[in-house]
Amino acid sequence: MRTIASIVLLFCIAQPANAETGHELWLRIHGVDPVKVICSGNSPTLSIAVRELEQGWGGEAGASVVLAVKPDKSIKGDGYRLTASGVQANTELGILYGVYEMLRRQQTGQPNRETVSNPSYERRVLNHWDNPDGSVERGYAGRSIFWRGGDDSLVVTEKDRALWLEYARANASIGINGSVLNNVNASPQILSKQYLARVKEIADILRPYGIKTYLSVKFSSPSLLGGLKTSDPLDPQTVQWWEAKVKEIYSLIPGFGGFLVKANSEGQPGPQDYGRTHADGANMMADALKPYGGIVMWRAFVYRSEDKDRARQAYSEFMPLDGKFRDNVIIQVKNGPVDFQPREPFSPLFGAMKKTSVMPELQITQEYLGQSMQLVFLAPMWEECLKSDTYQEGPGSTVARSTDGSLFQQKHTAIAGVANIGLDANWCGHHFAQANWYAFGRLAWNNGLSSEKIADEWIRLTFAPNEKEPAAESKSAGWVGSLLIPVKEMMLQSREAAVNYMMPLGLHHIFAGNHHYGPGPWFAPKGIRSDWTSPYYHQADKDGIGFDRTRRGSNAVIQYHEPLASQFNDPTTCPEIYLLWFHHLPWTYKTKSGRTLWDELCYRYDTGVQQVRRFQKIWDRVEPHVDAQRFGEVQSKLRRHYRDAQIWKDACLLYFQQFSRLPIPYDIERPVNDLEDLMRIDLKLSHHN
Amino acid sequence: MRTIASIVLLFCIAQPANAETGHELWLRIHGVDPVKVICSGNSPTLSIAVRELEQGWGGEAGASVVLAVKPDKSIKGDGYRLTASGVQANTELGILYGVYEMLRRQQTGQPNRETVSNPSYERRVLNHWDNPDGSVERGYAGRSIFWRGGDDSLVVTEKDRALWLEYARANASIGINGSVLNNVNASPQILSKQYLARVKEIADILRPYGIKTYLSVKFSSPSLLGGLKTSDPLDPQTVQWWEAKVKEIYSLIPGFGGFLVKANSEGQPGPQDYGRTHADGANMMADALKPYGGIVMWRAFVYRSEDKDRARQAYSEFMPLDGKFRDNVIIQVKNGPVDFQPREPFSPLFGAMKKTSVMPELQITQEYLGQSMQLVFLAPMWEECLKSDTYQEGPGSTVARSTDGSLFQQKHTAIAGVANIGLDANWCGHHFAQANWYAFGRLAWNNGLSSEKIADEWIRLTFAPNEKEPAAESKSAGWVGSLLIPVKEMMLQSREAAVNYMMPLGLHHIFAGNHHYGPGPWFAPKGIRSDWTSPYYHQADKDGIGFDRTRRGSNAVIQYHEPLASQFNDPTTCPEIYLLWFHHLPWTYKTKSGRTLWDELCYRYDTGVQQVRRFQKIWDRVEPHVDAQRFGEVQSKLRRHYRDAQIWKDACLLYFQQFSRLPIPYDIERPVNDLEDLMRIDLKLSHHN
Repeated sequence: MRTIASIVLLFCIAQPANAETGHELWLRIHGVDPVKVICSGNSPTLSIAVRELEQGWGGEAGASVVLAVKPDKSIKGDGYRLTASGVQANTELGILYGVYEMLRRQQTGQPNRETVSNPSYERRVLNHWDNPDGSVERGYAGRSIFWRGGDDSLVVTEKDRALWLEYARANASIGINGSVLNNVNASPQILSKQYLARVKEIADILRPYGIKTYLSVKFSSPSLLGGLKTSDPLDPQTVQWWEAKVKEIYSLIPGFGGFLVKANSEGQPGPQDYGRTHADGANMMADALKPYGGIVMWRAFVYRSEDKDRARQAYSEFMPLDGKFRDNVIIQVKNGPVDFQPREPFSPLFGAMKKTSVMPELQITQEYLGQSMQLVFLAPMWEECLKSDTYQEGPGSTVARSTDGSLFQQKHTAIAGVANIGLDANWCGHHFAQANWYAFGRLAWNNGLSSEKIADEWIRLTFAPNEKEPAAESKSAGWVGSLLIPVKEMMLQSREAAVNYMMPLGLHHIFAGNHHYGPGPWFAPKGIRSDWTSPYYHQADKDGIGFDRTRRGSNAVIQYHEPLASQFNDPTTCPEIYLLWFHHLPWTYKTKSGRTLWDELCYRYDTGVQQVRRFQKIWDRVEPHVDAQRFGEVQSKLRRHYRDAQIWKDACLLYFQQFSRLPIPYDIERPVNDLEDLMRIDLKLSHHN
Repeated sequence: MRTIASIVLLFCIAQPANAETGHELWLRIHGVDPVKVICSGNSPTLSIAVRELEQGWGGEAGASVVLAVKPDKSIKGDGYRLTASGVQANTELGILYGVYEMLRRQQTGQPNRETVSNPSYERRVLNHWDNPDGSVERGYAGRSIFWRGGDDSLVVTEKDRALWLEYARANASIGINGSVLNNVNASPQILSKQYLARVKEIADILRPYGIKTYLSVKFSSPSLLGGLKTSDPLDPQTVQWWEAKVKEIYSLIPGFGGFLVKANSEGQPGPQDYGRTHADGANMMADALKPYGGIVMWRAFVYRSEDKDRARQAYSEFMPLDGKFRDNVIIQVKNGPVDFQPREPFSPLFGAMKKTSVMPELQITQEYLGQSMQLVFLAPMWEECLKSDTYQEGPGSTVARSTDGSLFQQKHTAIAGVANIGLDANWCGHHFAQANWYAFGRLAWNNGLSSEKIADEWIRLTFAPNEKEPAAESKSAGWVGSLLIPVKEMMLQSREAAVNYMMPLGLHHIFAGNHHYGPGPWFAPKGIRSDWTSPYYHQADKDGIGFDRTRRGSNAVIQYHEPLASQFNDPTTCPEIYLLWFHHLPWTYKTKSGRTLWDELCYRYDTGVQQVRRFQKIWDRVEPHVDAQRFGEVQSKLRRHYRDAQIWKDACLLYFQQFSRLPIPYDIERPVNDLEDLMRIDLKLSHHN
């Protein structure tokens, strides 16, 4: 018999040499072959291009590559032409982008065919919701990479610089060319001398990579920071204050991008506080920025508690102002009319504002999509939005075309993504959340790219066997079939899975508390404004469920161009994915599957859980093809993902069952939690356990 | 659009009029038809028999029933004969048991054929592990029904009496005829004047129902309570003390049953403390009890930390004493050699002690089988034990026959069950735990009954539509197919499911901490005696898993009679259900399914989880046939049951995987918890959440 002494807890399975932290992102594969780079010019940006080629070359060994800045009418903005001999562009940045594309093609096994590639949007901007104290609003990957609290919070260290450089390079490699360094709920302090000094340091590091620096500003900064009596945009002193501040900024930060403004929204100050319009406010700032080429990104995310339908409000407030904005103002519009929900129809402002520049705001950080716990690839959601047809200029007037300058003459075009970046070793909290950063950059460059193509690229760059590793040969054998294909399938299904287990059939905003992670269809504390409660959105009662936005309801449908208005208005023609967004329907309403609405809801929730269970299987099978660290970290997240999907299903079905009073179809798996318990616990409490 | 005000949380679904608390147990169906009872004698017991018939008659309306105490050689002990005209028996108690059987047959739809039914055991005893302070060791159904703490702890209230009466009646209805009122880890106080006064009150209520009262006694009571210098069983003063105490008891409690003793076990005092043997100790007490017809039930549950194999110890310690005990001593032996595990082979003492009375001790309270959280019907486990062939007197020498007097001349025969009863409204914590109390009584009466028959009876008595209810007609339609058959299937599978998700293939005692609820294969705090740790039992290492009890190991197999010793010794002939009980085998050992041992373990654990998921489906479907209260309470328990089965599977597979270093077969569902988390949480912490 063995003695007890011989038994050891083997907790730490020895970590193989090829453990990866994920810090290298999609840039982890290094070339090994020599290359000769011929570059006519010399500049910080061109030097980067040359170095990237020399360090990452994966083409023919000893080949020559010519980098040529040379005017070409078929190349627009910072676009580029890939040729047999190298990269041609109108700008140095175009060269850099072309180089990254060339290397990407080598690394992902795509042929290096002659191509011209031009960016869909002039400005491809990350919005960081980072606060001066180092916290990140809706950030799930650690603290801010730009800001930190404490006494020495403004001291710039070598570590800071190194990190900012890595950040700049990662962005440039996927075409991102702007960063808003601070939260839209902005502190006035950001415009103070001390903070601007740090902004300058950051901007200097970002600049060679083509990344313009922007700041979110608080509308009342003239009063709060400048000590003025008012921040009224039509007050000459206010105007003067902004002019001086802008001048100060540009003297420090050449090429500064401009301001992002959240005004008269969720308690933020704005021009309406002084009886002025959004246009008055935005134009005042735009005028100050104009001489330097700066822009104002003015958010349309506004809603009032007294309104009967939050989904109508941005449109109601901004449409009357169409044509009233300066040409260096861009109205920044969230993809959907409410707030970054797992699924929304597109915002009706897209295509409707024909005389104003409009830019989409996407949310990369997964505030409502599982944060850093759940594997949800967002490209399919963004693709769904960008390809939605607004019909505003006839069929084919997609959201993409209505914002990228194809349909309307816009002085500036832009797209924003709320960043999911923090100090975590892997930048994004969840290894797969890196794919959303990547996808945003790629879609901002080319808003016609497919999610499938983006996922394919990202997986190859992120998980392909690193050929420097001795064991690469055996690992790479069959990795396409064993990893690439199943993992891509998982990524492409993941957003629909999240919709299924969270809020299928057009349900929205039924989250717990205000942490937006777990389920809370019951969330409605006494005294809270009704549009911050869940029942406001799901409207479940004994007769049925859903928000009536038809002509007989809030009439939000009218904000869409025909044929959409009529299509959405009629439950038989409304796409089922938006059914309960636009309709309040009886529990026994017959859905397209032939099932009742209640049964269909049950099946959708259960399907979502089954999908995540399947993701676990897919991932566990790739173990031989991924380094132990990333494999284990993703495996652990998927386990939690499964548990939380189960909680979502149980919470929503058991809660809604109180109204439907119908049995959960007996052939699906039963809830495994009690509603009372789910209502008592706050899923968030164990968020970082 | 609906307003928020119209939305109401409908938490308390109105409880239908037919809600049941479960307090009526299997006695909830009341007859409605008149009956004429002819009874020659008159006594408290016979009055009960008459009243039960009058209040519960479900036969022909207006029929006559004759109850006749009349000697009959084919009737043994308190057995009875059911005849066309009524019940005949040698004793009044026999009449009462016959009446309960007659009513049971009516209520369960069995024909009332002429039969003689004799009890398998003379003494059919519940052991209550109830402490004088009102707590219950390993009790999961609230506090003690006999004892309570506090100042007025010994005051007997009308509520007490009413409850004890209900308790007595429930026991009598299934043939139980003895109750040990206090914990085997006994307080000496139980023998004090004050406590004996309360014991008398209880005994007086139990007596008419034929239930003898017993007490657990602490071996050192003469010193602790009597103030003697020693409790040495051979010391005349000790002997005298016990004689006097016994006399005192019988003067208060005529027909007192005797003592139950846990001695020299888990820190309890015993004769070995004075250099005497178990026989010396037991016989001393037996001599004191003998004049009054009392017995000693002396537990064989002994083990020492220095021993190499706990499973061998009871046999090693007691076999040399065979033949040395008085004829009113019965050695009380747990069904398995270790400790009430989900599955153990039978204790080798059964059939081996040929010159000593031996009685099985079963555990009704589900200490190791899910406590009051999990639905586990224990009859199949007990049936498995009772029908095990010891071969001690040739083939057919089952545990049942070796203890019920069929094989050996025993002065007394007995069987004990550790009770699962407490102050909870439904007595047992889990509605289905009542079935285990019921099953113990039925098997104690007839140790040849099948689990299927017991489950069938219990379900009919417990869940059949109550015909007094107005809606009974419609509810009863189809209830046999919709409830009886599937629920019976669930019950009959439930113990095997528990074995699967807890410790399949002969694994045992891998529980967390000492609460014996959740998994803890890693449980091995520093400094604890090794036979209280889990690794002692599972012996997992990189080479394999299991406890080597073969001839090359601890040689525990030798304690079994051939052909069992050889059969158990060889892994190819050892029943797979006991494989890792007797063998340490490589992870890649080929099992009967053709799978490796590791894979087989994985499949078993997963199967257990799937079985519980299926139980949930079975139960949810019976909703229309069960009152809302019991339906909801069982539904909620099954949800937790499922979650905890999942935790068992995950904890054990992930823990053992550290040793096996083999993948969990990819076609089974993946673990959904991380091992680190499971090791950190203590499942018990949320036991009563």
